Amino acid sequence: MALKVIAFDADDTLWVNEPYFEETEKKFCGLMEDYLSHQGLSQELFKIEIQNLPAYGYGIKGYILSMIEAALKISNNTIDVAIIGRIIELGKELLEKPIELLDGVEETLETLKGKYRLVVATKGDLKDQHRKLHDSGLGAYFHHIEVMSDKQPLDYQKLVSRLDLKPEEFFMIGNSLKSDVLPVLEIGGHAVHVPFHTTWAHERIDHKVEHPNFRTIEKLTDILPLLVS
Amino acid sequence: MALKVIAFDADDTLWVNEPYFEETEKKFCGLMEDYLSHQGLSQELFKIEIQNLPAYGYGIKGYILSMIEAALKISNNTIDVAIIGRIIELGKELLEKPIELLDGVEETLETLKGKYRLVVATKGDLKDQHRKLHDSGLGAYFHHIEVMSDKQPLDYQKLVSRLDLKPEEFFMIGNSLKSDVLPVLEIGGHAVHVPFHTTWAHERIDHKVEHPNFRTIEKLTDILPLLVS
Repeated sequence: MALKVIAFDADDTLWVNEPYFEETEKKFCGLMEDYLSHQGLSQELFKIEIQNLPAYGYGIKGYILSMIEAALKISNNTIDVAIIGRIIELGKELLEKPIELLDGVEETLETLKGKYRLVVATKGDLKDQHRKLHDSGLGAYFHHIEVMSDKQPLDYQKLVSRLDLKPEEFFMIGNSLKSDVLPVLEIGGHAVHVPFHTTWAHERIDHKVEHPNFRTIEKLTDILPLLVS
Repeated sequence: MALKVIAFDADDTLWVNEPYFEETEKKFCGLMEDYLSHQGLSQELFKIEIQNLPAYGYGIKGYILSMIEAALKISNNTIDVAIIGRIIELGKELLEKPIELLDGVEETLETLKGKYRLVVATKGDLKDQHRKLHDSGLGAYFHHIEVMSDKQPLDYQKLVSRLDLKPEEFFMIGNSLKSDVLPVLEIGGHAVHVPFHTTWAHERIDHKVEHPNFRTIEKLTDILPLLVS
């Protein structure tokens, strides 16, 4: 392998993310429990989130807007307007969550530093992802951050060509088989899956992945033997 | 000048933008006119937008959230909840506006094509700016689009170094003296101002700019004599 760029997904690969969304959703369901069961609320919210993805894209701001829209729809416009204010606050709290690094992140980056060009490749809100990278203290390890509006094969193709790379020189590490692994393999790159204990429904796939350019590892530091001889 | 990259701001440089926001704000004021004068409403909304910039960044989603927050605050939580739904719709309409190219854009890009690396450098929502570039039909002229979370000197410095450029090889064209001109001059690049007939209050500056690397032109095609001999 003549790898040049190692790209790390950010949320739930470098730092904790999905549990914060789950905590927020639990609070949202608490505000709305006069109308539906928590399960019913989560289902309605998820449906609206997915409907809104083409317009809003990924990230917290679209999520807040979808929560507000769900509150109006589920209550048939009878919701107490103060609850809308509370949802906006939930969103702002989510935008200020502390950055909690996952195990082995610093050791991994410290070891790879100088050996490859390291980048962050993540979906989400532009401003929020920049803020999180800054607050993480990891900025100096990375050449730059790529906030992607989606992680389809075409998005990776554009990324790789913008970085003047051949696909086989690109190596992606992330917690989502759907976003970090399959599209990268499809364009001819290398991908490693580091599962996180919880995954957003939209990111789940229900089949096994087998490919010569792919492997699953248990913890982030397990990539080191693959990349450093 | 040994220029390598010509970067174009997008909104109100390549295509119409601010008039769409002004039209939306007028509709917002119409929905809220039981509470305050249009001027009072615009002032309150602007205050909340600016307060929210550090958390939300630029773009339509943050703008929608700020409109909702303003509606709650101005009405002291007495607003009819259906108006919140209407604000969300206004936001979605804004996200689907047709792309109206400004005069001379295609002629300018067609002439510069192949002579320099052309990029788009814009603030705003990631997904929305990608959508607009796609819908504009201009995508093929550009090497890529840079959606920036801000346009401070440091943001341009990072951009220039990521593109492996010296600052003097970078040439920026845009309608905002504050965002497209001053920070670029500060890092040692070249900048051209193409005024648009209306400018968001947050982008206005009240002094004249004079600098050897700077000039103002009346219409976009006026850059051609500067760049093509």
